[in-house]
Amino acid sequence: MPEVINDILGYDGLKVIQDSEKFNFSLDSTLLVNFINPSLKKEEILDIGTGNAFIPIFLSLKTKNHITGVEIQEDIYDLAKRSVELNHLEKQITILNKDVRTLYKEIGVSKFDVIISNPPYFKVEDESKLNKNDYLTIARHEIALTLNELMDSVKKLLKDNGKFYLVHRADRMIDVLEEFRKNSIEPKRIQFIYPKKSSNDAYLLLIEGIKTKKVGGLKILKPLYIHKENGEYREEILKIFRFKGEQNEKTK
Amino acid sequence: MPEVINDILGYDGLKVIQDSEKFNFSLDSTLLVNFINPSLKKEEILDIGTGNAFIPIFLSLKTKNHITGVEIQEDIYDLAKRSVELNHLEKQITILNKDVRTLYKEIGVSKFDVIISNPPYFKVEDESKLNKNDYLTIARHEIALTLNELMDSVKKLLKDNGKFYLVHRADRMIDVLEEFRKNSIEPKRIQFIYPKKSSNDAYLLLIEGIKTKKVGGLKILKPLYIHKENGEYREEILKIFRFKGEQNEKTK
Repeated sequence: MPEVINDILGYDGLKVIQDSEKFNFSLDSTLLVNFINPSLKKEEILDIGTGNAFIPIFLSLKTKNHITGVEIQEDIYDLAKRSVELNHLEKQITILNKDVRTLYKEIGVSKFDVIISNPPYFKVEDESKLNKNDYLTIARHEIALTLNELMDSVKKLLKDNGKFYLVHRADRMIDVLEEFRKNSIEPKRIQFIYPKKSSNDAYLLLIEGIKTKKVGGLKILKPLYIHKENGEYREEILKIFRFKGEQNEKTK
Repeated sequence: MPEVINDILGYDGLKVIQDSEKFNFSLDSTLLVNFINPSLKKEEILDIGTGNAFIPIFLSLKTKNHITGVEIQEDIYDLAKRSVELNHLEKQITILNKDVRTLYKEIGVSKFDVIISNPPYFKVEDESKLNKNDYLTIARHEIALTLNELMDSVKKLLKDNGKFYLVHRADRMIDVLEEFRKNSIEPKRIQFIYPKKSSNDAYLLLIEGIKTKKVGGLKILKPLYIHKENGEYREEILKIFRFKGEQNEKTK
């Protein structure tokens, strides 16, 4: 198993166990954490499809609140648990090896103030073409969790007026927004991500919604560009990578 | 009646009758016409809520196809008709003083290849506060035409695989997209408009949809910025204003 331990963002002493065959932390998750406005109030946070726990670990730099990561794949769950231990974050981060679709039956409904997800992006158009036992296939395709099932879980697990943060492909925005409104998660902030300033169209969107029956009040933020024209990361993206937390007490 | 005849975009000999108390051509309509990809095929085009016929007149620089403008307010319809005559465009542009909601009963369904609209942007939250006889109030608020009624009309009047182009407020995107999908108009291109590069959020969106049951294939285009930081129009906006048509035969 080609496992490696990587510094999570290079500068702050946090580490994450990567496995090139199973799970690497992604730029998308980094951008999603950067997009989150954490509250100073005591809140319960849930990360759905936590993978190797990159989101909870990186998010621990922004909040002292308790974070639960749920991961359906046992091997990936194991990676996540060990990544949390490696950073001595067991008190702040709990990893569950559960199916989020039925989690509400065990822990009850309306349990979280904040839910986060970097879910599988791709619709399954032709199941026969997919290897359903492959870790990456499950992480990327809507096999273990469809968009519809994700949003149904969010609706059940989120408290009223709780916040939901999602990263998804820009070209699936209509599906995403349809599911948001169907489940009374009203979008409040959307940011589009473009590879470069010269790119013809956005490839990702970040979206913050609130569980409420009150509609309206959407803001479309400034776009975010990842690379310079020469392919290097832009300074504002490097700043996200170098984020060390509001306090320095975590730096070893 | 404080009517003035203005050069439509300054450079190309087209004129439009403005009335500061009733109707002025707007930047929004200019951006919408610029967003349209006209076809070289023979097509029937409809502009819903045509106002003083600015959209049909400006669009005549991009296409030789026949354009119908429909306007419910009689005084504004009169302005539109005279604006068309002033430009000797009566052969290409027909203005109707009709209610678009019932137009399909007179002319039949599935009649247009392309529909365009710069509709009223504002929901009527409290009718008692509005002067419903005021021209601008009707043009700006969903009194004579709600978003729901607009989309229902588009669905009825547009041919299968026909295109619909809309400009609307960015903060109403969720309502807009919900109505698009409900009426089987699938969004294909969206562009957000920001006042300046430094603006925190977009204020308008341009959207192109196709009447089809096939979902997906959305592109979020590059953002468009209107002003420089000093308040002057940016060069790419001035270029839109100066657009003289693909041929110069219209210049007098």
